[in-house]
Amino acid sequence: MSEFNNVTIVKKANVYFGGNVSSRTIRFADGSSKTLGFMLPGEYTFNTADPELMEILDGELDVLLPGAEWQSVKGGESFNVPANSAFTMKVKTPSDYCCSFLK
Amino acid sequence: MSEFNNVTIVKKANVYFGGNVSSRTIRFADGSSKTLGFMLPGEYTFNTADPELMEILDGELDVLLPGAEWQSVKGGESFNVPANSAFTMKVKTPSDYCCSFLK
Repeated sequence: MSEFNNVTIVKKANVYFGGNVSSRTIRFADGSSKTLGFMLPGEYTFNTADPELMEILDGELDVLLPGAEWQSVKGGESFNVPANSAFTMKVKTPSDYCCSFLK
Repeated sequence: MSEFNNVTIVKKANVYFGGNVSSRTIRFADGSSKTLGFMLPGEYTFNTADPELMEILDGELDVLLPGAEWQSVKGGESFNVPANSAFTMKVKTPSDYCCSFLK
């Protein structure tokens, strides 16, 4: 879907890596949440608590997931990250993403 | 308010200046809309259609409004931009904003 309806959005941005990565938190009526974020080129490591589904909406990057080799991901593709782990992205072009926190 | 409830958010980001400025569009039940955006340091000129209220949520910048001198604006402050005009911002630190489109 191209938009989310009946959601709550937190006004202030989440800011990482000096602003090279920023996101907005949205919450759904069922208690689930997602972030919509934007990344400038660079290398970023993030830790997870809940498992995450990372949908790349636009852009090109390489991702290193736990126990895997580097893989290329581009707009329209997605990857899953396990709970309580870490993953590293080498962002090649400005990249738009939607991160869903799974239970 | 720190969050907006019962809104629609467009999934894809609006991207300007090679991604140095990005924003998300949110729409309210009354038909009004806002963008929540993030700007990296740089100089940016934007054109307006509707009049805009620009609330700076965090960061420091200088703004040149139509018919005015450069003025400094920081997190917690805001400014209005007339319809069908242009304004220029010199963004000094990564800056978070909420732009309301007025009628």
